[in-house]
Amino acid sequence: MASEHLWEVDVQGSKAYSRGLEKAGLLTKTEMDQILQGLDKVAEEWAQGTFKLNPNDEDIHTANERRLKELIGETAGKLHTGRSRNDQVVTDLRLWMRQNCSTLSALLRELIRTMVDRAEAERDILFPGYTHLQRAQPIRWSHWILSHAVALTRDSERLLEVQKRIDVLPLGSGAIAGNPLGVDRELLRAELNFGAITLNSMDATSERDFVAEFLFWASLCMTHLSRMAEDLILYGTKEFNLVQLSDAYSTGSSLMPQKKNPDSLELIRSKAGRVFGRCAGLLMTLKGLPSTYNKDLQEDKEAVFEVSNTMSAVLQVATGVISTLQIHRENMARALSPDMLATDLAYYLVRKGMPFRQAHEASGKAVFMAETKGVALNQLSLQELQTISPLFSGDVSHVWDYGHSVEQYAALGGTARSSVDWQIGQVRALLGAQQA
Amino acid sequence: MASEHLWEVDVQGSKAYSRGLEKAGLLTKTEMDQILQGLDKVAEEWAQGTFKLNPNDEDIHTANERRLKELIGETAGKLHTGRSRNDQVVTDLRLWMRQNCSTLSALLRELIRTMVDRAEAERDILFPGYTHLQRAQPIRWSHWILSHAVALTRDSERLLEVQKRIDVLPLGSGAIAGNPLGVDRELLRAELNFGAITLNSMDATSERDFVAEFLFWASLCMTHLSRMAEDLILYGTKEFNLVQLSDAYSTGSSLMPQKKNPDSLELIRSKAGRVFGRCAGLLMTLKGLPSTYNKDLQEDKEAVFEVSNTMSAVLQVATGVISTLQIHRENMARALSPDMLATDLAYYLVRKGMPFRQAHEASGKAVFMAETKGVALNQLSLQELQTISPLFSGDVSHVWDYGHSVEQYAALGGTARSSVDWQIGQVRALLGAQQA
Amino acid sequence: MASEHLWEVDVQGSKAYSRGLEKAGLLTKTEMDQILQGLDKVAEEWAQGTFKLNPNDEDIHTANERRLKELIGETAGKLHTGRSRNDQVVTDLRLWMRQNCSTLSALLRELIRTMVDRAEAERDILFPGYTHLQRAQPIRWSHWILSHAVALTRDSERLLEVQKRIDVLPLGSGAIAGNPLGVDRELLRAELNFGAITLNSMDATSERDFVAEFLFWASLCMTHLSRMAEDLILYGTKEFNLVQLSDAYSTGSSLMPQKKNPDSLELIRSKAGRVFGRCAGLLMTLKGLPSTYNKDLQEDKEAVFEVSNTMSAVLQVATGVISTLQIHRENMARALSPDMLATDLAYYLVRKGMPFRQAHEASGKAVFMAETKGVALNQLSLQELQTISPLFSGDVSHVWDYGHSVEQYAALGGTARSSVDWQIGQVRALLGAQQA
Amino acid sequence: MASEHLWEVDVQGSKAYSRGLEKAGLLTKTEMDQILQGLDKVAEEWAQGTFKLNPNDEDIHTANERRLKELIGETAGKLHTGRSRNDQVVTDLRLWMRQNCSTLSALLRELIRTMVDRAEAERDILFPGYTHLQRAQPIRWSHWILSHAVALTRDSERLLEVQKRIDVLPLGSGAIAGNPLGVDRELLRAELNFGAITLNSMDATSERDFVAEFLFWASLCMTHLSRMAEDLILYGTKEFNLVQLSDAYSTGSSLMPQKKNPDSLELIRSKAGRVFGRCAGLLMTLKGLPSTYNKDLQEDKEAVFEVSNTMSAVLQVATGVISTLQIHRENMARALSPDMLATDLAYYLVRKGMPFRQAHEASGKAVFMAETKGVALNQLSLQELQTISPLFSGDVSHVWDYGHSVEQYAALGGTARSSVDWQIGQVRALLGAQQA
Repeated sequence: MASEHLWEVDVQGSKAYSRGLEKAGLLTKTEMDQILQGLDKVAEEWAQGTFKLNPNDEDIHTANERRLKELIGETAGKLHTGRSRNDQVVTDLRLWMRQNCSTLSALLRELIRTMVDRAEAERDILFPGYTHLQRAQPIRWSHWILSHAVALTRDSERLLEVQKRIDVLPLGSGAIAGNPLGVDRELLRAELNFGAITLNSMDATSERDFVAEFLFWASLCMTHLSRMAEDLILYGTKEFNLVQLSDAYSTGSSLMPQKKNPDSLELIRSKAGRVFGRCAGLLMTLKGLPSTYNKDLQEDKEAVFEVSNTMSAVLQVATGVISTLQIHRENMARALSPDMLATDLAYYLVRKGMPFRQAHEASGKAVFMAETKGVALNQLSLQELQTISPLFSGDVSHVWDYGHSVEQYAALGGTARSSVDWQIGQVRALLGAQQA
Repeated sequence: MASEHLWEVDVQGSKAYSRGLEKAGLLTKTEMDQILQGLDKVAEEWAQGTFKLNPNDEDIHTANERRLKELIGETAGKLHTGRSRNDQVVTDLRLWMRQNCSTLSALLRELIRTMVDRAEAERDILFPGYTHLQRAQPIRWSHWILSHAVALTRDSERLLEVQKRIDVLPLGSGAIAGNPLGVDRELLRAELNFGAITLNSMDATSERDFVAEFLFWASLCMTHLSRMAEDLILYGTKEFNLVQLSDAYSTGSSLMPQKKNPDSLELIRSKAGRVFGRCAGLLMTLKGLPSTYNKDLQEDKEAVFEVSNTMSAVLQVATGVISTLQIHRENMARALSPDMLATDLAYYLVRKGMPFRQAHEASGKAVFMAETKGVALNQLSLQELQTISPLFSGDVSHVWDYGHSVEQYAALGGTARSSVDWQIGQVRALLGAQQA
Repeated sequence: MASEHLWEVDVQGSKAYSRGLEKAGLLTKTEMDQILQGLDKVAEEWAQGTFKLNPNDEDIHTANERRLKELIGETAGKLHTGRSRNDQVVTDLRLWMRQNCSTLSALLRELIRTMVDRAEAERDILFPGYTHLQRAQPIRWSHWILSHAVALTRDSERLLEVQKRIDVLPLGSGAIAGNPLGVDRELLRAELNFGAITLNSMDATSERDFVAEFLFWASLCMTHLSRMAEDLILYGTKEFNLVQLSDAYSTGSSLMPQKKNPDSLELIRSKAGRVFGRCAGLLMTLKGLPSTYNKDLQEDKEAVFEVSNTMSAVLQVATGVISTLQIHRENMARALSPDMLATDLAYYLVRKGMPFRQAHEASGKAVFMAETKGVALNQLSLQELQTISPLFSGDVSHVWDYGHSVEQYAALGGTARSSVDWQIGQVRALLGAQQA
Repeated sequence: MASEHLWEVDVQGSKAYSRGLEKAGLLTKTEMDQILQGLDKVAEEWAQGTFKLNPNDEDIHTANERRLKELIGETAGKLHTGRSRNDQVVTDLRLWMRQNCSTLSALLRELIRTMVDRAEAERDILFPGYTHLQRAQPIRWSHWILSHAVALTRDSERLLEVQKRIDVLPLGSGAIAGNPLGVDRELLRAELNFGAITLNSMDATSERDFVAEFLFWASLCMTHLSRMAEDLILYGTKEFNLVQLSDAYSTGSSLMPQKKNPDSLELIRSKAGRVFGRCAGLLMTLKGLPSTYNKDLQEDKEAVFEVSNTMSAVLQVATGVISTLQIHRENMARALSPDMLATDLAYYLVRKGMPFRQAHEASGKAVFMAETKGVALNQLSLQELQTISPLFSGDVSHVWDYGHSVEQYAALGGTARSSVDWQIGQVRALLGAQQA
């Protein structure tokens, strides 16, 4: 029974509702106490694993009420007064998601923190930055880590926004028309510690925006994690050979004794599809419905449970991968080559006054000349360079220093050390603000 | 050329960038002025429709720079200094979307306002509320309108959040490593009036979260509009006959002279699929990429342009439909039937002290008795009701008043007049806050 | 362990493979017999529920081999000779799907048969055909049933094609390069009764087209079932009141005693989203992969198992719904109205020689005249009609007979009785051919 | 106007229909000839670019009929007799797709042929086969090419099946009920050279299975092309350095003079997302509809036109890429390393009688020993190997020959030369059969 996950929040919701009924005069104090104690007993049975489901229990909500009646008798029949399954299930789901998203939020921040710590520690390691998977320019390894960490801060921000919309109480909306018995919804809100109450009972019982948003949040977050996993799978190939996954996060082959496969990264990558599938599926279901409650909405729960579990597992695996990953510093250094400084060569000319478009062209000529001569770009002699432009002079040799190269990129967001430090500070500040 | 839409923002971005170059000492004041005037001329040509694209122009960005060079000569070649296509295009796209989302925001609020005005004006009209498409309970017509308006306020809120994330400047990120020439990104931000600058150059040039978010925002908003359209299509059938689309929003049949088809509503409904398809397509493209810029990202633009246009059209059609819709008040009244008060009959017993579960059962017996006898529920005599429960007495007759029924649902969010007024106030307040 | 579903086919595959090894001289006859008997014992344990999984068993495949070793000792270690997990799992999955799709095929044909039988039995009942949800023209109720049955015959045809592509054996492809030990793949094919063998080992171990195709097949089939469910939900509303779901396929409300909700139909409708979500999810996963085996492919199994189970349940529920559905004949008849014959009125004029476009217009005028006068279309007098066209004469009265109307539509595929009979014959012939 | 693409097939369909009307006695021979000549004139205007659309033309169908009336007068009004927009548009779309799919079929076969030719020519080049992106075993370069070609043969087969379902004529179905004027649909079928006629008029006018199938076909085919592109992008990195895209299919960087980016491959890869998005979008639209024609179906056309164009372009680019691709043979050879023969080392022991599981373990020990000693696997001495197993003897040296390695994989589908030849033969035979 998929709804089993909800036993705890269902009891929570029912306890709050019985307090609302008492306040509205629909339960006596004694009846309320009876119900509260009965519900505590129900919860205890669940917690201890002694709760027994009946074949007739349609779902967790009917099971809990059935059990309550067995425990306290007819008074149990007053609990559902003015409440409908429609407002009850969506209240339970919101309670469950509120708690669960808070856990996911913490796991996500933990991952980001792990990345930022690593970025700080390995700030002086350079390696190739790639665009179009072609070596582009030298960058700091930390700059790469931070590029993914920064993406995840947006996920973290978005999750907070989704949480805000989850944190709205529908209880007291009945089946469609509202609650006719004077139940004080503000009291229910306070009891269950929600941030706000829903505005319209028809909408409240049938909208699943918060589910769709959560599933999309997870899809986009998984897209980021999948892209990072893809990078690491590449960097871990024999050909790139820049990083090595720790043994705990890779496995062998049933046929090939020499192999170690990046299973953990492939797992992360593969889950992006599944999570998006749940998002697409729910949206298709929602799209085809007329307004108010239709049983189709029941599809929300399995999607939420599956995606929550997946996200929780994936975030933890990603944290483990990042914190145990080995990097091959020498290979990283070795992978830098003078042609990756062609842009800097152009900037050299720009600094001497040449318009960029001409400098780009001149640098391109130097690249071509080096290729033709079969030498590295930095092995062209000054004379050779001067055939391309008279602006070249002895100080061109400074261009060929990778450390010097990255330090040029000192505008905010660039790969210079000062900017990387700034990024680390910014992300830490964001994490602090989000946690609060 | 899909990128043509971007001519204006491309000029805007280039003007700001040339100011940044001047401040960084890479352009003299004279050169900057030359470039600014040249760019103004380029813009003028676009605005007047005299700009001529060359077959060699790869896209709007190269076209504008090519034209600038024709107009002002070699100095044009300095404009791209330290800038890459990678940070240029994403800056342009953000500028375009910022402007466009602001328009969509206004159109969406206009639609909500139209709905709220109508809800206020027609607050005393009752009709059946449906769940599972079965008649459920009497509700106010305004309550139905507001159920859709409230859903749209969430879309409006979400769009503001997306706008906030669009409003972040990537310019000065170069191709991947950042800007090496001391360009002051804060100055660029201020010039272009962005809310913030991007944190990491690798991420800045290749992330398209704001596009994915926008497409998902549109998908969810379209889902709401599609569900509302679906309701209205149903309510406009001969069978329901509750509303009638104005002629301006319906069309005839090429074969059947008697028919009027709800084309505008079907159009709204159909676009939900297309918009979601764009969202799914982009997410699939993003998911499979390694990090930093890959040409695949180019797919973002057509998706954004198409979805923006679709949303703009759909929001205006929806506003037109709602503001011109005729309602058949008598049919609405006639569609209410005593069996829809069975829940209220149960509440009657609850108020007399019967636990709800028993009251629900007793009311169910009354429904069955009426069906068996072939009479309406309110035509059962007091004696007959008393065979079901002795708690029934003469005052049960009040139950059969639909106006009395809806007024019971006075808890916040319910269908009582006071609650409907409260909803109207809440939505108006939200609109006011969002506009600010 | 999701792969548990595969225990039986895993044993089947291993038995065939050990026969292949014996033929290739890699097992002695005695060793083969030992393995075969051991595998039978493993199967027996599964069948009797006594098989015990170890915490170390990675999946069903390793569990079976581990158990085999416990039962027969070191010889078990010869079973995997030249086989890889890569070709083993995809062989198992194909075996499982082959069997399962055959069951689904039968269930689908059973549903179609149920529909055709019903169409035959109720061939003389007329009711409104709707386009754009507006009453369009009188049609036979059987014509509606057949419209859905015919759609399902395409699903049935497509499933056969998918089955053909499932029925291809990958065993003997190893991990990537093929089998180096002379295993005779034709023998394996014959042992496992496959239709063909895969052509390329790299493709064979990593392609999941047959899974994607199956998931899409299910998505499209669910779309058809969802549309049929949607029709029936509408026809079952108080407003349409044309059909009634049997009690076994509807449920009551927890709040509203008078309600019966079409839960079974909503369930069918809702599952379309979930199934499509699985299809979208898998495709996204596949799309982002480099060639050959990657662990991401593991996502295939849960998708297949879930969708297979869903399809099986949904097809059976749909069969139950159709076979027990009550129809309200009088309401169907009552729902026909003279304005639905406006097209026939135009044809009347066409038969008298008027070009259709003029006749359409003339009929439109008659509709307008009747509306203006507040009478039914068939209550316009001959004189009144003649003010529109002199071609109207006394025989126009025949137009107003609904039975006469439908009989006109005698071209193949139309709603005349002869055509409906022809359709029934065609669908029955298709079913016969597909079963063979 | 999206429907403009349909001008030619619309004329074609109308000509056939007018022949049907004449046969049914609804047009005289003279009228038919007038209409046929008028339609030829309309077609001529389109072909010569002189056809003028009116602002009032709703779509291409009304435009053509309007123009026909201008050309031949009132007789034009007879053309639509018994025909509805519903059966007309879907007939036109099927005609268009039939023609277009036939072109796509040819382009796809051309691509496969190009691949097979290349596979045949470069059959003796070895390079690493990868699984999990880790070097796995030596394979023939042709084996890799064929792995993708074989996948595409399935697309080719599937497209033929879709074409078969496109090739069914709906004309004569009217709006919903069929054709009431005795039009002979078999004659229409023969006129338009369709393979069959639709069975049920309600289904015929509103089913878009053939569109959904086509879009899914394209999605799966693009998935294959995207995976191939992904491989080639990787193989073309500095790190892998196995292939080089010809200049015609790559472009430079606006910032980095040394770069050549694989734009053509990125384009192929990116289109997979867009195409799938269209499939997902249409399916969502279809899923939410009640049966028969709804205007939402109009979304089909743009999806078909866009996806057809995309497929046509992508298939041609892929053919160009494959036929001009350079391969770096020496790098391919150099990328092979002895550890990739670890599996073969295990098989060596298997051939000497050791059970595979033990042999796998023994080979794993050898890999570990070599790693520990810092030597290549083939540099372990016989004595060293014998400490692992006494079964090692002098002939183990044969294991270290890559050419010998691949030749072992002689089972059908493997990477031995005989098997590669067999594959080439099989694919050629398939192409031949499909063309016929």
